[in-house]
Amino acid sequence: MAQYSAQLDGIFVALADPTRREVVRRLGHGPTSVGDLASEFPMTLPSFMKHVRTLESNGLIRTVKHGRVRTCVLSRERLSLLDDWLAEQRAVWEHRTDRLEQFVTDQEDTREP
Amino acid sequence: MAQYSAQLDGIFVALADPTRREVVRRLGHGPTSVGDLASEFPMTLPSFMKHVRTLESNGLIRTVKHGRVRTCVLSRERLSLLDDWLAEQRAVWEHRTDRLEQFVTDQEDTREP
Repeated sequence: MAQYSAQLDGIFVALADPTRREVVRRLGHGPTSVGDLASEFPMTLPSFMKHVRTLESNGLIRTVKHGRVRTCVLSRERLSLLDDWLAEQRAVWEHRTDRLEQFVTDQEDTREP
Repeated sequence: MAQYSAQLDGIFVALADPTRREVVRRLGHGPTSVGDLASEFPMTLPSFMKHVRTLESNGLIRTVKHGRVRTCVLSRERLSLLDDWLAEQRAVWEHRTDRLEQFVTDQEDTREP
């Protein structure tokens, strides 16, 4: 549970930046080399690499080196933790809505002659 | 678009903390006074209020004051932006999977006698 919470912290931190969200979106199309990715962002390579490392250290992407080329791959399973968290919140709201409906139904039952 | 991106930044920052995620979860059960909420967290009231203000300034909760009691209310519509963002990512992956399937199908068609 503590590990899940720490992983969520990292996911939210990693995605709290438009460049990193855009990297995630582009990698959704398939693995891409760091060089090709970096050329699409208006910043220096060292600045871009910081974003890549933040995404990697928080588990949202993996990077693999073949020769001189480092390729980035999206880790969809890490993003699915975000889906799980949102599903948990919805479960709480729906439970609450169910209870409200039950309350209204109970009131209507009481009012019947 | 820039506004949507800035709102997403704020949502991710606000949720990158276990206390703030727990506040969101508890408010999913219904509006709660700051005092009642604060009593459930092992920290001082000023520390807790910082979390409340971060959630409020990023639009995830609203607070309403009646007399001396300040009540926190969850803003579900802001959380739905997170759903939208995840749906966008899934759309990219599914489009990619469709193209892969098309590629495999095309290859199979080519191989037919």
